[in-house]
Amino acid sequence: MKRVFCLCFLLMTICSYNTEAQERLLTMEEAVLGTGLGVENLPVTWRADGSSYTTVEKGVIYDVNPKTGEKQELTTLKKINALLGTSLNRMPAYSLTGKGTMRFYAGRELVGINPVADTIIHRYAIPEGAENPLYADEGRFLYSRANNLYWSDREGKEYAITTETDKNIVSGQSVSRNEFGIAGGMFPAPDKFHVAFYQKDESRVSTFPLLDINSRTGSLREVKYPMAGMDSEHVRLGIYNYETQKTVWVEPTDFTEERYLTCISWAPDSKTIYIQVLDRSQKHMRLNAYNVADGSFIRTILEEKNDKYVEPQYQLHFLKSNPDQFIYTTSNRDGYRNLYLCTLSTGAVERLTKVDADVELVAERGRYIYYSSAEVSPVEKHLFRLDMKTRKTLRLTPDAGWHTVNISPEGSYFIDTYSSLTVPRVVRFASTDGKRSRELLRAADPSAKLNYGSIELGTVKSADGKYDNYYRLIKPHNFDPTKKYPVILYVYGGPHSQMVTNTFQAQLRRWEMYMAQRGYVVFVMDNRGTTNRGLEFEQAIHRQCGKCEMADQIAGLNWLLGHDWCDRDRVGVHGWSYGGFMTISLMTNYPEIFKVGVAGGPVIDWKWYEVMYGERYMENPETNPEGFASTSLIPMAEKLQGKLLICQGAIDATVLWQHSLSFVRACVVKGVQVDYFPYPCHEHNVMGKDRVHLMQKVTNYFEDYL
Amino acid sequence: MKRVFCLCFLLMTICSYNTEAQERLLTMEEAVLGTGLGVENLPVTWRADGSSYTTVEKGVIYDVNPKTGEKQELTTLKKINALLGTSLNRMPAYSLTGKGTMRFYAGRELVGINPVADTIIHRYAIPEGAENPLYADEGRFLYSRANNLYWSDREGKEYAITTETDKNIVSGQSVSRNEFGIAGGMFPAPDKFHVAFYQKDESRVSTFPLLDINSRTGSLREVKYPMAGMDSEHVRLGIYNYETQKTVWVEPTDFTEERYLTCISWAPDSKTIYIQVLDRSQKHMRLNAYNVADGSFIRTILEEKNDKYVEPQYQLHFLKSNPDQFIYTTSNRDGYRNLYLCTLSTGAVERLTKVDADVELVAERGRYIYYSSAEVSPVEKHLFRLDMKTRKTLRLTPDAGWHTVNISPEGSYFIDTYSSLTVPRVVRFASTDGKRSRELLRAADPSAKLNYGSIELGTVKSADGKYDNYYRLIKPHNFDPTKKYPVILYVYGGPHSQMVTNTFQAQLRRWEMYMAQRGYVVFVMDNRGTTNRGLEFEQAIHRQCGKCEMADQIAGLNWLLGHDWCDRDRVGVHGWSYGGFMTISLMTNYPEIFKVGVAGGPVIDWKWYEVMYGERYMENPETNPEGFASTSLIPMAEKLQGKLLICQGAIDATVLWQHSLSFVRACVVKGVQVDYFPYPCHEHNVMGKDRVHLMQKVTNYFEDYL
Repeated sequence: MKRVFCLCFLLMTICSYNTEAQERLLTMEEAVLGTGLGVENLPVTWRADGSSYTTVEKGVIYDVNPKTGEKQELTTLKKINALLGTSLNRMPAYSLTGKGTMRFYAGRELVGINPVADTIIHRYAIPEGAENPLYADEGRFLYSRANNLYWSDREGKEYAITTETDKNIVSGQSVSRNEFGIAGGMFPAPDKFHVAFYQKDESRVSTFPLLDINSRTGSLREVKYPMAGMDSEHVRLGIYNYETQKTVWVEPTDFTEERYLTCISWAPDSKTIYIQVLDRSQKHMRLNAYNVADGSFIRTILEEKNDKYVEPQYQLHFLKSNPDQFIYTTSNRDGYRNLYLCTLSTGAVERLTKVDADVELVAERGRYIYYSSAEVSPVEKHLFRLDMKTRKTLRLTPDAGWHTVNISPEGSYFIDTYSSLTVPRVVRFASTDGKRSRELLRAADPSAKLNYGSIELGTVKSADGKYDNYYRLIKPHNFDPTKKYPVILYVYGGPHSQMVTNTFQAQLRRWEMYMAQRGYVVFVMDNRGTTNRGLEFEQAIHRQCGKCEMADQIAGLNWLLGHDWCDRDRVGVHGWSYGGFMTISLMTNYPEIFKVGVAGGPVIDWKWYEVMYGERYMENPETNPEGFASTSLIPMAEKLQGKLLICQGAIDATVLWQHSLSFVRACVVKGVQVDYFPYPCHEHNVMGKDRVHLMQKVTNYFEDYL
Repeated sequence: MKRVFCLCFLLMTICSYNTEAQERLLTMEEAVLGTGLGVENLPVTWRADGSSYTTVEKGVIYDVNPKTGEKQELTTLKKINALLGTSLNRMPAYSLTGKGTMRFYAGRELVGINPVADTIIHRYAIPEGAENPLYADEGRFLYSRANNLYWSDREGKEYAITTETDKNIVSGQSVSRNEFGIAGGMFPAPDKFHVAFYQKDESRVSTFPLLDINSRTGSLREVKYPMAGMDSEHVRLGIYNYETQKTVWVEPTDFTEERYLTCISWAPDSKTIYIQVLDRSQKHMRLNAYNVADGSFIRTILEEKNDKYVEPQYQLHFLKSNPDQFIYTTSNRDGYRNLYLCTLSTGAVERLTKVDADVELVAERGRYIYYSSAEVSPVEKHLFRLDMKTRKTLRLTPDAGWHTVNISPEGSYFIDTYSSLTVPRVVRFASTDGKRSRELLRAADPSAKLNYGSIELGTVKSADGKYDNYYRLIKPHNFDPTKKYPVILYVYGGPHSQMVTNTFQAQLRRWEMYMAQRGYVVFVMDNRGTTNRGLEFEQAIHRQCGKCEMADQIAGLNWLLGHDWCDRDRVGVHGWSYGGFMTISLMTNYPEIFKVGVAGGPVIDWKWYEVMYGERYMENPETNPEGFASTSLIPMAEKLQGKLLICQGAIDATVLWQHSLSFVRACVVKGVQVDYFPYPCHEHNVMGKDRVHLMQKVTNYFEDYL
């Protein structure tokens, strides 16, 4: 590990991005909305049999022969609009079957066309009023309406899967507030006869009132919000059979009733379903198999335990070649997220990726497993091929940077889309034996004519001296090291995040450059607790969120402020959500350092945060009273000395108003001045055009007070 | 009228208050809480038979012979605490019967003691959980609990007057949002056997959600809030008989169902009850008599109509000498609020106070009617005695200023408490024939040793040239007319208000002096629409709130800014509630004048304001669409150029968050920067200690940006 990091350090610190021949500054609209500053891309879609791939260029779809690179026009957006009678103004994402049928959504229709014959094969409409629609083959749409789950057939006839009148019982929607890799509540089976779905009972979950100002008289919008240590939702899994129109229920009995049912995975034969059942404390997980016919428990395949937490996030991947084996992903066995080959019949669990780095399964193609990995550098993502026969691995992405890949269906080729600090985007066609490669696109830098300052990638030691933390540093254009510049620390710092990567301009948020162009040094660093650095690094925050994150940020900042060109008397900090929590934590714990801060949607006390994310990192107020007390910002209000602006979406259902209003209340009670701004009609983030207003407000605050 | 006003102008402009020998500046705590700056007072209580009066001085109650002024100790707070076993730390307000019984509240007990014998006569306890308790003689307490009305007898036994299970039906509480002089919902009858009470049905009234952050999970506080033009409450009057324990209902049928029942007045014999029934449009009022025995309608005594509005606010006062006659107060007959003598048997209505000034009944004593009047000056209040035999009037308060009086029960004497610009407070004993007078207290100026700037009273012509509008002008201490000072306009401007009077320091809000001490000129002026200036002046705002108020404020400001010592480039404005509406109206209508504004709890669009107050001045969005449109601040958001801070109590149930959040939303949508600050746990005003924080915030905003 050490070796890799040192190499990176050398690599990174000499990497710096700076264009000459500048002409003008970013406007706030450009900085926030990025209009005209998107890097060119080349969307590539493989035909299901891998015989060709298609690209979309200026409204024309080309079919490309992977062997020769020969390219011919398949169809155009204009033709498709004429065929369908639609007025799509850009080509939607589509799939291509082996027979060449293009399938895509045109508005609320799933359309299949033959692009060669220019004929329509099918048009399936999402029913009116359907929410969370999911296409489930055979012309079927699954969807929810209010708290119930439905499906419609080819003719659009509706069938109710659930008919609950109690609004607290919600079927077919996401549960556990999208934690544990959960992104939806419906799981169609491979056999196309079944669908599994979540059902949650929120009767015991407390309700938080939000004010909707869109109606004349102001109306109430209530959200169910389970807070750390309090009663939570109860979840079970339904399995519905389209033919019998009956549902059987899978109701695990492990642990206490507020268990989590995660990573729902169908066996290839659709006769067994696997659930990673996690206990409420998130310290014990059982991978259980259940019988699809009657919902009964079959057996526990394996277990994970951890004193801090286990975080199941990945579905099982059954091998096509052998349904007795599946690939299982966990961070809990060897300190990093690795892939394991499990054999059902023998119970064997074999580590496949033997690297001290976080790894993710990309695809299985015959004897090869493709995975992405942080092993080259934590700030890079590379593709590797694992030969399941020899257990040998081959790196397939030679160029430095962050690679996103698309393996061809039969496995001979892949499309590699990547960027790095100075490379805006390359799209590359390559063979999976690593021998052939063809560049399809090398995008230009759309900011070349803007007056960008330099962007530097590098590392600073974490506060405990154990890790190299990656930063990006943006310097004002026309930087003059004999001058002194005010400094803005932009911070997020929470789990699951990685702000600094070796991608184009190092994941720069353009606002940072906007500020740099106005004479600020901007610094962004990933601290302990963030992702892609292994379990120890991530779990360092356990039971005391904010503590080591702050220590690391201060370590980084101290390194930065050691430079003479930094004005130590003019240091600001800005962040949103976990970054809002960090901003206020830093302002109140280090009042001598920070003069100005802007915190958005901040967590103020973890006791007001939700059960799933919150208890993973903080446990609950009963088991970790000292942790909750020592990280709460309520008692810190009186330590505030600098100028602090808090912004929040006025219907934020993620970090409730309870947080920021309580902090404001504490400030008022203690006679401490603080500033506040609500964004009406916005939830946890201020998105769209209104974000320009937000960032102008943030900017004005630094301009007025820093 | 003209003559009086001119006289005032001369009088006022030479009146200016300025102390020398200054030592230090006000602190913000002093400016807001007034700690240590209260003007000394002398509470005076008449014995019911008028044979003596008592004063409270430093915990000692003295009995004073009005004829001789001889004074002797009656009792002390210490003795009372010893007698009752209480620990009152200040003497509560008390009454004195003819027999000398002192009656007062000690905590939740109504106590009667004999202060001479030092014995307890009775102790009646307010029942546990009682809300809105009202003592109704005979040891009875009336009170509400939730939505029902109860009473308890001497022994504390509870009787339910209403037993409604529907929470929308509320009995015994105030109705019509305290407009029309309504301050409570229970009206004990003179006969002591009956009590009348309001019952309102709010089923059709829309509900507004407020967030209470005091519970851990945040809880919902819903308020019934009828908005202009929308469904409102329905009111009827119950009459309950303590003996039969039965209620009869008075249900007027005048106009439409959303009528107002105002100015509930018992006939002296308790057999008839009078209601001033006002139609929903507030343009037509009928004074109706109802039979107490069965609630039936007897007849309409008189009516009032007005194209703009009629505003009944005063109960009838039946003459003690003749129950066939009562004194009736209205502004609707002769352009000013005057007193009328009505004779039931003949239907005669005779104008008693024949002055072009607003008048208020103070007391009836035998052949004399006592009333206060603005006839000397609109910024002064004086006591007059009207001889009902000769119809001659006698002015009883020779000194300039604002007089509050307390006529002795038998009518020979009165206590006159007054102040004027330079007179902190005088308490005077006088005879009602105007011949004898004795000064009981002449208070010192508690701000004498603070570095106050000058306070000037004067007038400026209204924008239409018809009226003299009164202002107070506070200049910085050590004022130097060769310098230029920034200016702050403090504004309220709404109906029922009078900010400028010839009282001590002209009703200065100490914060104004705080700002003057920091180098600001502060200006406050009453515009058209405010009170005590007659009906035409008040009704000038009808259907277009804000328009002529702004015109007048600008007229006043233009006069002020004509002085070389005003910095025309640094003009700020601050106001709360109606004044918040005025502040934003001024900022957006006159962006070239105002650089900085702070608006508190502002009305933004009258369509979100309530029915009773709102429809009186604005009618409703259907009958006055152009008025609502042209006064709305939503379309004005984009005109905002200066720095504007909006503050609001986070549980404001008077001016709902709908207003300010909608304005913020409009600013965001239009890309206009605006600032905001919520005061959690505060309603329409920020009161108590937290007000120091508020005014510091307001001050900082002017300091930062003006």
